[in-house]
Amino acid sequence: SYENRSQQGVTWTVVSPIIFTYRIIQCRDLLDPGNDALLWGHVGDGALTGAARNGSKPVRRFVVIDETVHRLYGPRFARYFEAWGVEAKILPLATTEENKSLELVAKILEEVHEFGIDRRAEPIIAVGGGVCLDTVGLAASLYRRRTPYIRVPTTLLAYVDASVGAKTGVNFAGGKNKLGSYVPPVASLLDCSFFQTLPRRQISNGLAEMLKMALMKHPGLFRLLEADGRKLLCAKLQPCDAISGSSSEQEDGAVASTRIAIETMLEELAPNLWEDDLDRLVDFGHLVSPELEMQRVLPALLHGEAVNIDMAFMVYLAHQKGLLTGDEKERIIRCMRGLELPVWHRDCTLDLVRQSLQERLKHSAGSLRMPLPTGLGRA
Amino acid sequence: SYENRSQQGVTWTVVSPIIFTYRIIQCRDLLDPGNDALLWGHVGDGALTGAARNGSKPVRRFVVIDETVHRLYGPRFARYFEAWGVEAKILPLATTEENKSLELVAKILEEVHEFGIDRRAEPIIAVGGGVCLDTVGLAASLYRRRTPYIRVPTTLLAYVDASVGAKTGVNFAGGKNKLGSYVPPVASLLDCSFFQTLPRRQISNGLAEMLKMALMKHPGLFRLLEADGRKLLCAKLQPCDAISGSSSEQEDGAVASTRIAIETMLEELAPNLWEDDLDRLVDFGHLVSPELEMQRVLPALLHGEAVNIDMAFMVYLAHQKGLLTGDEKERIIRCMRGLELPVWHRDCTLDLVRQSLQERLKHSAGSLRMPLPTGLGRA
Repeated sequence: SYENRSQQGVTWTVVSPIIFTYRIIQCRDLLDPGNDALLWGHVGDGALTGAARNGSKPVRRFVVIDETVHRLYGPRFARYFEAWGVEAKILPLATTEENKSLELVAKILEEVHEFGIDRRAEPIIAVGGGVCLDTVGLAASLYRRRTPYIRVPTTLLAYVDASVGAKTGVNFAGGKNKLGSYVPPVASLLDCSFFQTLPRRQISNGLAEMLKMALMKHPGLFRLLEADGRKLLCAKLQPCDAISGSSSEQEDGAVASTRIAIETMLEELAPNLWEDDLDRLVDFGHLVSPELEMQRVLPALLHGEAVNIDMAFMVYLAHQKGLLTGDEKERIIRCMRGLELPVWHRDCTLDLVRQSLQERLKHSAGSLRMPLPTGLGRA
Repeated sequence: SYENRSQQGVTWTVVSPIIFTYRIIQCRDLLDPGNDALLWGHVGDGALTGAARNGSKPVRRFVVIDETVHRLYGPRFARYFEAWGVEAKILPLATTEENKSLELVAKILEEVHEFGIDRRAEPIIAVGGGVCLDTVGLAASLYRRRTPYIRVPTTLLAYVDASVGAKTGVNFAGGKNKLGSYVPPVASLLDCSFFQTLPRRQISNGLAEMLKMALMKHPGLFRLLEADGRKLLCAKLQPCDAISGSSSEQEDGAVASTRIAIETMLEELAPNLWEDDLDRLVDFGHLVSPELEMQRVLPALLHGEAVNIDMAFMVYLAHQKGLLTGDEKERIIRCMRGLELPVWHRDCTLDLVRQSLQERLKHSAGSLRMPLPTGLGRA
């Protein structure tokens, strides 16, 4: 900080950096008691892990889990913590878009407070889709001004999107994610085996965000989704050893596509964790989709579906403006159809587009940003 | 961020810095329409100020003000914004320790949302004591994941303490400041003329936090408070041109003491904005005082009074441990009395001290820190 004195008094300018460090860990068999990632993955290198493990205090964890995920995996979570002798409080909650509110945050906080946690050593664990991860993230970031938390995404969408960045949030006063914070988890633990119990439509939903990154930044990922998209969808993005009879190419496709999606997302998000820079390629597909989603009640339109309709509109626009050739436009639309994503919706009217741009303009410091593709994997 | 591949999958470690920049501005006549600090003080250098002023959009401000401050200064705030042609929404609220809750945050957020603000250009302004600044700071840090806000402290305690750091917060589940965030304001605007309407006891209350910094870090500030403390208290820390008949020494005392208190506080807080480092001299006086405050209902014991009782106890302890001479101990206690601060309380029993240390230990990663003076202005 530096000081500036004048007759009026003193002005101090404080420049203070905060460094966030967090880990995104892809692993198999997260719920296998032989794997310690769920307990110690956030701690990092071996020395620290040892110190944490050999602490004299009993190990405790507070876990918030989506109630559907709990129905499917609850017993395995319970057995995991039991095997490690961990005192775990598992709180199943209906984490739906309608419940994503400050009230749900307060409910989580009351339970956390009652359980009592050491905010330095006992991270809160969130298991579920984006709504669950966003809501628990906000609760954790508020408790004692910042309690570490861990994200365990169970949907493909949350795996490639919510798990990577620092955003937390809830809906407020009719607006999506109007309240929240920018506090990354200490770790995101990614296990694609959760996808096995996802409905096919939820896989398409996540593939839309992967396609977004492909179109904006990665020609190779686009070619992969164009060639193998439908196969990836049918296999629910499981690597080949999880599905008998699939080829080794298949394995590469599933593993490579999620890896690249996360890498390209990280490239964009990590240097701009607090979104101070408004030029964000990750906003592609998010100009009209918020209004489109608000018009619809789930399950009429999933987030990735709304994003895809937005992207399809922008692809036509980019073609109109001469940024994309007719062939490129056709290939993108065909790829979207292969991923079983809608490319049009009757409610996506010109009026809605105008209204959306107006809304975005309000929060863009006066100049609207509209990321557009200028090729297959370039923007 | 860097990547680490293994058979299990990939681990990415993300290291992402956020840089906070904020200004603390001491000025006179904050409510004089000739002073533009309240509107543009946060923007900084001349060029930017010009650009902000010449914007085509009408200037709007959302102001939360403590209701007592509003009764005393409301009309002057209204006239100020009127003179600048600013569309201001002024929201008076009872910001007491009892109301310092998530519900009050939600109420502020509803009003902010209804008024509608451009989070890039229209900082929320908080005017009042620590409770008001903490609560509005939390609301602002949540709205759209971070809306800039400005602190205008009207008590001496908030002037030298809440205005300097990044802490925001509210009480929760019977605990003081259990929820909050670490997000600094874009600016703190310090005008000591507000102290003129403070009760004498509120001046003593603020002097306790100044004495804390003096004892921990600044022999010069201690000598100043020891020699002139009572005079500063009587003059309500007004510089001499504001009180006829006072000497020029008096001016130096008032101006110098607040300046030094803020400087020493900044030295401690700025490099440790998120309190990652637990060795904090600013925690002196805050080991037993939280429990002491919770026992009492205002106005039985003010924060600074509880802090002073804690400090007096620790001064005796430091003497017992041979860290302070008998003479030093006496001088400190005499200085406290000069500032009209209590040095003892019947509820500050050994049981309460034990219970407090136990509570602090829980949140200290296993090793309790206890800052103690080792001289007059050294710890």
